[in-house]
Amino acid sequence: MKALYIESGEVSLRRLPRAKLRNGFARIRLRMAGICNTDLELKAGYYGFRGIPGHEFAGTVEECPAAPEWIGKRVVGEINLACGACEWCARGLGRHCPTRTVLGIVRHPGAFAESLTLPVENLLEIPESLSDDEAVFTEPVAAACEILEQCPWLRGGEAAVLGDGKLGLLIGQVLLAHGCQVHQFGRHAAKLAIVKRRGAMVSLAANRPKGRFDLVVDATGSAEGLASAVAMCRPRGTVVMKSTVHNRVGIDMASVIVPEITLLGSRCGRFQPALELLGNKRIDVLDLIHESFPLAMGCTAFERAAARGVLKVLLRNS
Amino acid sequence: MKALYIESGEVSLRRLPRAKLRNGFARIRLRMAGICNTDLELKAGYYGFRGIPGHEFAGTVEECPAAPEWIGKRVVGEINLACGACEWCARGLGRHCPTRTVLGIVRHPGAFAESLTLPVENLLEIPESLSDDEAVFTEPVAAACEILEQCPWLRGGEAAVLGDGKLGLLIGQVLLAHGCQVHQFGRHAAKLAIVKRRGAMVSLAANRPKGRFDLVVDATGSAEGLASAVAMCRPRGTVVMKSTVHNRVGIDMASVIVPEITLLGSRCGRFQPALELLGNKRIDVLDLIHESFPLAMGCTAFERAAARGVLKVLLRNS
Repeated sequence: MKALYIESGEVSLRRLPRAKLRNGFARIRLRMAGICNTDLELKAGYYGFRGIPGHEFAGTVEECPAAPEWIGKRVVGEINLACGACEWCARGLGRHCPTRTVLGIVRHPGAFAESLTLPVENLLEIPESLSDDEAVFTEPVAAACEILEQCPWLRGGEAAVLGDGKLGLLIGQVLLAHGCQVHQFGRHAAKLAIVKRRGAMVSLAANRPKGRFDLVVDATGSAEGLASAVAMCRPRGTVVMKSTVHNRVGIDMASVIVPEITLLGSRCGRFQPALELLGNKRIDVLDLIHESFPLAMGCTAFERAAARGVLKVLLRNS
Repeated sequence: MKALYIESGEVSLRRLPRAKLRNGFARIRLRMAGICNTDLELKAGYYGFRGIPGHEFAGTVEECPAAPEWIGKRVVGEINLACGACEWCARGLGRHCPTRTVLGIVRHPGAFAESLTLPVENLLEIPESLSDDEAVFTEPVAAACEILEQCPWLRGGEAAVLGDGKLGLLIGQVLLAHGCQVHQFGRHAAKLAIVKRRGAMVSLAANRPKGRFDLVVDATGSAEGLASAVAMCRPRGTVVMKSTVHNRVGIDMASVIVPEITLLGSRCGRFQPALELLGNKRIDVLDLIHESFPLAMGCTAFERAAARGVLKVLLRNS
């Protein structure tokens, strides 16, 4: 099968054998995949990754001996492959299973290929109301929804989101859908317009209000974002850390300790609430799509995704 | 009156006029005061502090026109002088009042003097069961108790405390009194023995267990403590930041975000629960006292408090 492959800082198109189908797994023909910043970081050498990347996808089940009723269904799939037996899995937190593998990230071949495999229990059927272009956003919308799961006390109120990249714009919309008054801070008027249409107050400001918000989400993807977010947070408020910045980030601990701010690391989320938000059209994702490429043009797609100002780049299996 | 005074990186003994007694304030004759790391930092020039330091004290009310029934009573006093009218004060969080002053720290003369002043509402009577030597620990014990207020979900279970300094040893004991199984990590067997006697497991280990604890308190006072604490924390666990380290601290954000760890800034606490713990002899503070000096020997006392391995140094008004 055709697949993109990352090795030694390069992405290439290869012809690779299909993976053997393990017990309880389904084989899924790719329909559409999305390139995420994590994929760009894998290419750049983080995690010492080598293999097929890709964890945002929509596909069709084509082989599923364990549960043949899935065959032909259009699906998305949770990206963490958990053991199912440990304490974390018992708590429904397979995303933290210590022996998990992760689709296209940790020791499980990813979705930038003509087909991929996942355990049946990771699959969710895509509602008819959702196109492939929309469904492929389920994973990043789930990552945005994770904030709601981690902050169950969040009931409307003001929230600031720093960053107008792909994830920042989804987070802004998820918080709006949750009833928050969202102030989104970014550097690109055109990107901010996407959340402004949904009701967010937006600002290109270098002048960010100090100590104002009970919830601030840092989705800047930059090393400076955390300190900015802390400065905008009220005493006893919460700063959600959504920028997975590799390398060390400097922070003045007194700026966190004196106002007793909570810094909350936040990663993947459950797919079901994300699919519901997408299915109910509470989140506008089509405006985030910059361009789509056939899988065979994956190398060009990676270059495009890495260009400044580009939002989501998709890969289609055609 | 005699008072210690910090200016330009030096502490000196001075004879200063007593402050005018403001409406609603009490004048308190010092009985005993404690030197805290914050005092050493004020001397070193943090906050650009100039004035009388000192915020840990026990004293006797000698003047109190607003409420003469306090006269003659032995008291401790909350160190934040709040406006009493803002949203924070209404929530009982005067410790975060934006216009607050702070005894001996922010624009209010401190306790290292023959007398000090505080608003009557800041005062708490010292129970008879407590000596001055014990009562002077109310403020740092309250700072340790703040963790319980910020983590209301904490019900026993394992907790790690990093650091065997004054605050670390109080935090270990407060968590023990709360029913936690405390693992205290430090560098001095003699200091660790103080919490070991109370039931803590102690370790001089360089080998700290990774990813094991749901609650880890960083009370190392060092820039490296935070990263160590994060490494010892389980996924979805909480790291309490009790080390007010000035200067920037480096942290790998991925180490917080991937396991979705919560970093909780924690500062001052309410005095009442601290007085109760001390009054019930649930906390052993006398073993933390290294030496006491008369106020007139305050400069020597500051030197002693700054020496390696020294725990609490007290100043007595005699």
